[in-house]
Amino acid sequence: MRHADAGPGGRPPLAASSRSRIEPFRAMSVVARAGELAGAGRDIVLMCVGQPDAPAPLAAREAAARAALAGPIGYTASAGTPALRRRIARHYRERYGVEPDPARVYVTTGSSAGFILSFLAAFDAGDRVAIPAPGYPAYRNILRALSLEPVEIECVAADRWVITPALLEAAHARAPLAGLLVANPNNPNGTMLRPEAFHALVDAARALGIRLISDEIYHGLTFDMAETTALGLDEDAFVINSFSKFFCMTGWRVGWMVVPEAMIETVDRLQQNAFICAPEISQIAALAAFDGMAELEAVRRGYARNRALMLARLPRLGFGEVQPIDGAFYAYAEAGALADDTARFAARLLEEAGVAVTPGVDFDARRGRRWLRFSFAGDHGRIAEGLDRIEAWLGRQNR
Amino acid sequence: MRHADAGPGGRPPLAASSRSRIEPFRAMSVVARAGELAGAGRDIVLMCVGQPDAPAPLAAREAAARAALAGPIGYTASAGTPALRRRIARHYRERYGVEPDPARVYVTTGSSAGFILSFLAAFDAGDRVAIPAPGYPAYRNILRALSLEPVEIECVAADRWVITPALLEAAHARAPLAGLLVANPNNPNGTMLRPEAFHALVDAARALGIRLISDEIYHGLTFDMAETTALGLDEDAFVINSFSKFFCMTGWRVGWMVVPEAMIETVDRLQQNAFICAPEISQIAALAAFDGMAELEAVRRGYARNRALMLARLPRLGFGEVQPIDGAFYAYAEAGALADDTARFAARLLEEAGVAVTPGVDFDARRGRRWLRFSFAGDHGRIAEGLDRIEAWLGRQNR
Repeated sequence: MRHADAGPGGRPPLAASSRSRIEPFRAMSVVARAGELAGAGRDIVLMCVGQPDAPAPLAAREAAARAALAGPIGYTASAGTPALRRRIARHYRERYGVEPDPARVYVTTGSSAGFILSFLAAFDAGDRVAIPAPGYPAYRNILRALSLEPVEIECVAADRWVITPALLEAAHARAPLAGLLVANPNNPNGTMLRPEAFHALVDAARALGIRLISDEIYHGLTFDMAETTALGLDEDAFVINSFSKFFCMTGWRVGWMVVPEAMIETVDRLQQNAFICAPEISQIAALAAFDGMAELEAVRRGYARNRALMLARLPRLGFGEVQPIDGAFYAYAEAGALADDTARFAARLLEEAGVAVTPGVDFDARRGRRWLRFSFAGDHGRIAEGLDRIEAWLGRQNR
Repeated sequence: MRHADAGPGGRPPLAASSRSRIEPFRAMSVVARAGELAGAGRDIVLMCVGQPDAPAPLAAREAAARAALAGPIGYTASAGTPALRRRIARHYRERYGVEPDPARVYVTTGSSAGFILSFLAAFDAGDRVAIPAPGYPAYRNILRALSLEPVEIECVAADRWVITPALLEAAHARAPLAGLLVANPNNPNGTMLRPEAFHALVDAARALGIRLISDEIYHGLTFDMAETTALGLDEDAFVINSFSKFFCMTGWRVGWMVVPEAMIETVDRLQQNAFICAPEISQIAALAAFDGMAELEAVRRGYARNRALMLARLPRLGFGEVQPIDGAFYAYAEAGALADDTARFAARLLEEAGVAVTPGVDFDARRGRRWLRFSFAGDHGRIAEGLDRIEAWLGRQNR
């Protein structure tokens, strides 16, 4: 059937699909290159990936170790273990004062599986789904791979870099939207909708019949602003969260969704077939992680110190605007005075200064060449070291 | 936009997508019901799910426990840790005498992620992909959810229940196929293509320009017949495998693919965006699992004993044909003399006899009502107990 260019001395290989012609997630490519350099003996400061330096709470790690040594780690019910689903439901009561029926709580293989499941459950091939720009690149790339059409809504400084009802309505008027994905706090900037702004956006989506998918993966990591969950605001919304960020469990690949009551069976069928279940070892660790809140709060206070350092030093290094860091652990900084193209700038920073950061084109295809994302989820001393290296490297450039 | 039936007292909920209207994986529903009964104090013999009773090798479990206690478990390169990718490549040399470039080895979140990645990489919406009937139901359900068209090829006793070149060519003649998924050994029956039959089928697919996806998840678990890998036979083939079955690591959710050289970048982009990476904790365990081969061979010898027991007792219980159990740990048995509809029969067996088995409709939509799948991956004594219970229960029926 389809063939690509002929290989050496043979018939041409079968070609890849069109749907798979998506962008790479460059942050992961930076991670891979940083790993190569580190493997060759270079000391690299990692500010490229949204990953806490801190481990999962000790209780979580001990629970996993005990379970691993005790015997089989097997499939769970596809929705997750009943104990973990109940504990997540209770977490909503404790944190937000609203408790979902545990039957609506789905344990997923990280938020990544949550996106795939919610997109497949809610949208058919060709459907248009609004996402923020700047925003997490996997949104648009997963959407495309699933034959859906991402519609980037360009946020602007005048709106404090968030999606507004007016922006949503304008995009819907151009061609109808089936969905809206909002991250709050957002990646790559940490910017949040204020509670009243979030309510207004949810109401606007509801009024237009647009399915809301609320990415709440950075909840728990906020600095000055109250966080708002979509749970309880819109019975059609999917609420996506994860143990990766606040709970410091990236490499365990475990997260959760709260799904609309009307979608429970649909999500169950998809999960059974497409994922079977999230890793049991990670579900065991996640349940115990709720007993490590004091450790996790200490980690968050460390991010607050790192954030203050970034906000103090980035302007002195020559960066321009930094989008509002209301939460998460990222600084998304304008670098037009330092670089024409932040992708090349980031590559040179890695090779020459030993600092790994992520170019903005990952997050904003049109405007990202002028922006850089710094993750400050690392150790405070290493963040300071990274900034020192950038300062010294910039000092060596002739510009 | 789309709305389903009105909910109580409100506006109607937004409707699910068409693509998500797939069948449940009934084996998982049986697992969930069996879990409820066990939770209520019932003793249930589980012969419903393809899951070893044995744990992962001790070396794997100890490695995971050490890593969990030592500190952060984080993202790995999206393709997996270099050490694990090299070890998997070496495994092919040791087992099959053919060693892939480790750059072609992708560590996945179980074979489930391997299916999603290979389907997205190779096929566009609307493409037709041939799968065996009987066969693993997730094939057809994942294909449908990804807007692809599964084409079931009904295998028959005269061909020893495998897909033949003639069956493939006939299906392709009706409407062109973009892909062929073959499992060898197959689930639910354990039936294998003999090496020469496998070669002939691979050649037929190549000649027609049909992309081969070779599911080799039950390799290592064979009884009388040599297993054949597609690696080295077809440079366009995806080879899918997992640590779940031979390595007894279902609940760790870790597997691998060997991808065509021409597809490395495509798969990398998809994995980065859709999954980020497989769980690091499970990759650590998987690497060490290769040091547990003696334990795993002992487990396999246990399956051989269970298989002999099934083959001896199923006919005496009144079952008809059992499809050839060349490998895996399933008996797929014809039950027409015992039941009009094996779904109802299986439900009664669970509730009344305390034995969980899987109805054939999971695996063969048209003919499955006459068939049942038994998994014999459990402890020998429990398998015997399950058969005893079925015998006693059948004895109590008035037919």
